[in-house]
Formats: sequence, structure tokens, C-alpha cells
Amino acid sequence: MADNAFDLIVIGSGPAGQKAAICAAKLRKRVALVDRIPMMGGVCVHTGTIPSKSIREAIFELTGLAVRAFYGSNYRGRNEISMQDLSFRVQSIVARETDVIRAQLKRNGVSIFQGTANFVDPHAIEIQGDGDKIVLQGKNILIACGTRPAHSPEIPFDGKRIIDTDHLASMEGLPREMIVVGAGVVGLEYASFLAALGAEVTLVDQRPAILDFVDREIVEALAYHLRQWGTVFRLGEKVTRAGADPQRDRVFVELESGKKIIADALLYAVGRQANGDLLRAEAAGLQPDPRGKIIVNERYQTAVSHIYAAGDVIGFPALASTSMQQGRIASCNMFGAPAEHLPELFPYGIYTIPEISMVGPTEEQLTASKVPYEVGIAKYAELAKSMMLGDESGMLKLLFDRNTLKLLGVHVIGQRATEIVHIGQAVMYYNGSIEYFRDTVFNYPTLAEAYKVAALDGLNKL
Amino acid sequence: MADNAFDLIVIGSGPAGQKAAICAAKLRKRVALVDRIPMMGGVCVHTGTIPSKSIREAIFELTGLAVRAFYGSNYRGRNEISMQDLSFRVQSIVARETDVIRAQLKRNGVSIFQGTANFVDPHAIEIQGDGDKIVLQGKNILIACGTRPAHSPEIPFDGKRIIDTDHLASMEGLPREMIVVGAGVVGLEYASFLAALGAEVTLVDQRPAILDFVDREIVEALAYHLRQWGTVFRLGEKVTRAGADPQRDRVFVELESGKKIIADALLYAVGRQANGDLLRAEAAGLQPDPRGKIIVNERYQTAVSHIYAAGDVIGFPALASTSMQQGRIASCNMFGAPAEHLPELFPYGIYTIPEISMVGPTEEQLTASKVPYEVGIAKYAELAKSMMLGDESGMLKLLFDRNTLKLLGVHVIGQRATEIVHIGQAVMYYNGSIEYFRDTVFNYPTLAEAYKVAALDGLNKL
Repeated sequence: MADNAFDLIVIGSGPAGQKAAICAAKLRKRVALVDRIPMMGGVCVHTGTIPSKSIREAIFELTGLAVRAFYGSNYRGRNEISMQDLSFRVQSIVARETDVIRAQLKRNGVSIFQGTANFVDPHAIEIQGDGDKIVLQGKNILIACGTRPAHSPEIPFDGKRIIDTDHLASMEGLPREMIVVGAGVVGLEYASFLAALGAEVTLVDQRPAILDFVDREIVEALAYHLRQWGTVFRLGEKVTRAGADPQRDRVFVELESGKKIIADALLYAVGRQANGDLLRAEAAGLQPDPRGKIIVNERYQTAVSHIYAAGDVIGFPALASTSMQQGRIASCNMFGAPAEHLPELFPYGIYTIPEISMVGPTEEQLTASKVPYEVGIAKYAELAKSMMLGDESGMLKLLFDRNTLKLLGVHVIGQRATEIVHIGQAVMYYNGSIEYFRDTVFNYPTLAEAYKVAALDGLNKL
Repeated sequence: MADNAFDLIVIGSGPAGQKAAICAAKLRKRVALVDRIPMMGGVCVHTGTIPSKSIREAIFELTGLAVRAFYGSNYRGRNEISMQDLSFRVQSIVARETDVIRAQLKRNGVSIFQGTANFVDPHAIEIQGDGDKIVLQGKNILIACGTRPAHSPEIPFDGKRIIDTDHLASMEGLPREMIVVGAGVVGLEYASFLAALGAEVTLVDQRPAILDFVDREIVEALAYHLRQWGTVFRLGEKVTRAGADPQRDRVFVELESGKKIIADALLYAVGRQANGDLLRAEAAGLQPDPRGKIIVNERYQTAVSHIYAAGDVIGFPALASTSMQQGRIASCNMFGAPAEHLPELFPYGIYTIPEISMVGPTEEQLTASKVPYEVGIAKYAELAKSMMLGDESGMLKLLFDRNTLKLLGVHVIGQRATEIVHIGQAVMYYNGSIEYFRDTVFNYPTLAEAYKVAALDGLNKL
């Protein structure tokens, strides 16, 4: 094989690209992975999941949030949290995570190329890095080039006070008043971080309700907590104009309803644009959709049979966790190794403060599909462990079939929600009933114990 | 039924007693629960699990342990941690937990009696509280009266500098140098807390090895961390004499090997004496064993058929978690309700710093039973979440059958070990294989992800 010839060229080094490359390498294939120069690890590592979740943990700890239950709601771990405190933590984690990914790719013999990738023809990828262009030949190609923040003509981004999530780190200071446009997962996560830091946040969204795929009781608990911290929700409201007042260092938005909101900064977090439009995919005979997405079949194969796509660039669910699995499955498919489908059952983790996680349908979805169910609830306040962790407001909710007791769904808000949801997920995978939780011994004290409390609550209703 | 006549009298309000009482009450039985005046909740709430785990969480947070990975090993969240800082947290949690238990018992209609319980005859219990003695009649009786710290004639306890675990809270200050006699779970937990607070700890135990039921690799990792904090292990050493030097506020122990150890305080944590000897059980025709234990069959029934016993007073495994389940099962058995046996599969949680949890056999146990196995390991340092939490030293280890891939055991050391072990426990319950972890989507970033990393590591070895 020539030096520039590969069994697989992966475009993008985010969760999907990494896992696809390593999976193919383990199948003893020759693999090249291409990404832009500072972006090893993708949006996930550099501007998305890793930075936002690192900020979250830093805030949690630096604000002493975990112990407010003991010392009162005005307690702060440190008087002043600076942008520097947060970015120090984030930068060290991003650097470490980039090293871990690079080491893992090298250990598996994946060739790494840095630069911008474009299709030359269906098998050739041109890379423009620091020096001369090079062209790689691939028997197979995986497009895993991710997304970028979507922009809007109404919003005059300046990268300092009117920003998207890519530019959060370049903000000069923490705003005291912040407008967040877009109350989706990303908008809510950042809104909750800023609210936890003491900022007055106004959340604006065109939609009349937030997080419509999440259980209502859980969403309302989140909204309650954010309002306790001073957050204002402006839902069903459309932004008509936004701008900055350079003299007074302030920003404003005007809403279709006539309201005007003024603050120190504006974060625009309405959707993502897929990067499928940046690859000259036409040269390979591929046409991304108007939002830049690449269309695939259930094998993650595009209309061109040796070109696959995975991760955020193919759209829903666009989670780091599912993208990793898609990358692995795509590699197995292209090289004829046995591959599972992406499991139908996967958890959602929403890293707001407080955090939310769920697996399986919500009450609303079950009701819409006419599946009768019963509910078992554990309030964190009843658990010894949550007292120790200072979280008295969380809850875990089990949905189950009244007759068979089969577990149908798990919905959690509160500390460690994203960890403990996996216990219920395993039981659901094996078609287990809530009797499992009644009869199982849980470590004491843990938050996992909530499953037993919720199961007993549910069984008592029968 | 007369006012003093009950379907069930429960002696002891710890985990076993509480859950037995509530289970019987839910079966619409008339239930009395007796405990000594300040002890609602038992040792678990007052001197055992709850205080020690609360101290643990307080230390974790007050010392800034979680962020040392970022700021270097000399970083402390606060310069001076006082005994007051710790006891403030503990007292508020103990008070809350006592309230929660009392409220739960009342809500279920359980009659609470405070005082010392003694048998008058097989159906009659005399209670000596603040005022006059009263006598209750019970169709059934559950002995769940727990344990107390064992003492030794070589150790002249003074409750201030030579103490057992019951007297930790009455220590005047945090010792700079501490001797812990007994390197079992309790001794190790407190030793690790003191070491994390900066004390120089010497651990003494007659046995040549610590925690012989725990995986060796995990135990050695724990020992390594404790030694990093300056802890000295004196294993295979017998204490011949101990005492205090009142002029100099110091204590000493002499070992059979001739060594002498000097410190500020001594904690004696060698075993527990069951309280079965304090009930005049002879009046009911029952004879506790020499360590005060009550002997039961697999239905938790004593030699006297209407008298049951559960919890620490019956011995192994003596965990809050298993005691709760025993209490529930005993109640179901005595009232003919369907009851599971205590599951063979239960997790151990060891709340040292770092924490340990396990479910299923260890490598050593599998080797002894000639069950061949393969190992899959995830180092926490490879997980994005552990970087965020500042824990780079943890690990999760899966043991599985090389041929069937069936999961045989899960062993974890590191943050949240006691939570995430339940995921593996569920998979083991359903006889799952490690392919479950390969094919499942885990929230990202979480520590639970360690299961996938470990499963892929294991599968790569085949």
C-alpha cells in the first residue's frame, strides 16, 4: 500500500471519529484521521462537552454549592469566582483530554493528519495544513466533522459581549446580568451555570415550553430551581433585534411582543449548523441537506456506498455518548465485522445544575401511546447520602407497568443523576421489573438507594 | 387487642429494626418499636455509618481533596480543619436522619417506645424508660439490638485520648499523630479520614494482611494511597500494653515484637460485641453466643419460633444495607407474606478515602475455586469525568469468563465506587456478559463509562 493510501480516512477527531478510527485499527486496518490544527478531539473537547462540564464541576466546587444546605443559601465557598478560576480548570482538562486522545490514537497506530479536509473525488481527500497540500486515498471514508454554532442575522455577534458558545472562554469577565437566547439543552446548561454563580439570567425561546422530551415534573423542578436563583423565563417570545451599546458596555434584545431586555452580555445558543457543507462533498457525489447534515442509512452509510458518516453531522441524537457508538458501528459495518445496532435504549444526560438524566419514555410519551403506567418516587431528601452531599431537592422517578411491574422508564434530577441512571438502564435492557430494586441490596449510604425507595413507593400504590 | 398488645415488638431501631417495623405495619400489623432514649436509628445513625460517612464527605470537601489534582498535593481548601467543622456537619445530619426515621415510623403507625428492653417471658418485653416500667405483649418479637465496640483488657480506655469509635466525637481536637488498632473496615475508614486531614497514622493489626475479602490489587492501591499520606502499617503485630502519659498528653502502645509507638491518641477498632447479652434473652429461652450474637435460621428465626433476629446482632455481613433487607424479610416470614431470600449477590461498600466497592468474587476467590477468568481494567485517569473530579488514581476492574464472556465480578476503587458498582450488580443478576457494556450507551462524561472502557480492554485480550 502506498504511503498515502488507507483502508479508512476519518474526517474529524470528535467522539465518533476517534472511536471509528480505533475500532478499524483494532481490526488491523490502515487508518488516517484528519482534523483542523487546534481541534484534536473535536468540538466535544474544545468548545462543547468537556469545557462546559468542567466549568460545571468547577462552579459546583468553587461556589460551595454542595454545602449550601448546611450553611444557608447565601453561603459561598469563595467570595469571588473569576473567569480565571474557571478557565484555569478548563484549560488543564482540555489539555489532558487532548493528550489522552492523541496517545490512544498513536498507541493503536492511527496516522494523524492536521489540516482542513476536502473531497477531491469519492476516494481522495485533500488536506491543507501548515505547509503544502497533501492528498490521501481511502478505500473507505467516514465523515465525522461535527457541527458549529448556528448564527442568526438578527444577532450582531462581536465575540465579546454578544457571543455564541464557542466564544464563552474569551469573555472578559463574568456578567452580572446575562441574556441567553435559546432554552435548549446547551442554553439551559449555561444559564444554570451563570445562575449558580449569582448572575441574573433571562432565558428567551420561541418555543412555549422547554425540554419537551423530558418528563414534565423534572423540567418543572429545574425551572423552579433556576427561578429560585433569579432566572427569568421568556418563552414563546421571538427576538426581533439585538445589539450593543458601546458607551455603556451593555447589550439589549427586543422581542416581537414589544419587550426589551438589557444586560451585560448575550449568549446565543439556538441550534447547531452541521459542517457537512464545508467538505466539498459534491466532489464525492454527496449532497448535504440545507443545515449541512449528511444523510445516512441504519448502517451509517451515505448514498455513496464506501462513504459513511457518524456523530453530530448526521443529526439526532447528537450526544457524545451515542456518537462514539455510531463511530464504532460504522467501522464494524464497513469492514464486515459483527456490529450491533445503536441500542434503542440510551440515556440522556443534561448537565444543568441540578443535573438531569433519563432513560426510556416519559409519562407524557406513555400517555400519548396509551400505555398505562404507575409511578414510584424517591425524594433525595429521604436519603441519608443526599443529606451528606447537601442535595435535598433531587428526585428519582420510576415508571412501570401496573400489571407486570416491568420497568418502563427512569427519570432523575439531582446530584449524580447521570451516573445512577445506568442502573435502571441495565434493568430495562434485561426487561426487569421494579421488584429487582425491592429485592436487591444497595450500598448504604448511596444515592443509588433511591431506586429501592422509589420501587417500594410504587409497589405500595398497587 | 389491649393497648400493650402487639403483633410485633421490634427491639432496636437501626436499619433492620426500622425496615422490619415498617414492612409489618404495611402488612396492617400492630407494631411496637423499642430503643434506648437517644438512640432512634441505632448505631447506624448515632455512632456508626451516618457519622463516619458524614465526616468523610465533610473532609472530602473541606480539605479540597477533590481538586488536589489541579492545584498540587499540598493544596488545602481551608488551612485549618477543626473538630468543630466536622462535628457541626455530623450533628446536623444525625438530627435530620433521626427526624426522617421517626417521621417514617409515625406515618406508618408504628408505636415508638423509648427505654431499655428486657425479656420477661417469651412474649413479654419490659421497658425501662424515664418513668415507670411498662410491659408489652408481642405475638412476634424481632431482636435487632445491634452491637457495641468490643473492648480489650490491654487497652485502658479513657474516652478522650484512648477511645473506641463511640467516643470519636468527644475528642477535644484532631490528633496530629494517631494510632489505630485494628485494620478492618472501620479502622481503615477512620485511618484514611485522619490521614486525609494530615495526621500521621500508624495502623496496627494482628493479622498479616488487611481486608482479605477484597481484591488484592484494590487493597494494594488503598495501602499505596494511605502510605502516600504518611500512614505506617504494622501488620502481624500484637498489642501487649497501651497507656497514657498524663503529663505530656501522649499515648503509647507496646507490641509483642518489642516496638513502641507514641502518638497523641489511640483509636481501638478491633471488632464489635453483639448486644444479644443485654436483653435477658434467657427469660425467653434463648441463649446468645459468647460474643452476644443471636443464632437464626435462613428465615431469620431463632430457636424460639415466634422470635426472630436480624441485623448486626446475628453477625455477618453486618452491613446497614443487608440489615435493612434482613429486617424486611424477617417481617414477611413471620406474617406469611411472600419473601425473597437475601440475595447471594450483594455489594460491599468500604468508605475509605479513596472509596472501594465490589460485587461478586475476587480474583483470589475465583482462583481458589478453579474458575478461570479474564480481566478488563479501566483506569480513572483515562476518563474525562475523573479529570473533572480530580480523581486520577481510581480504577474499575471486571472479571469475566473467557469463553462465555459472563460477568463474574466488579471491583472498584475511586470516587463514586459505591454508586457505580450497582450497574455491574444488575448485569450480574441477569447473568449478563461484558458485551452488555460494549454495546450500551453511557452518559458522557460519567465515571460509569469506566464499564465500557474496562469491557473493551477485556475483549481486546481475547
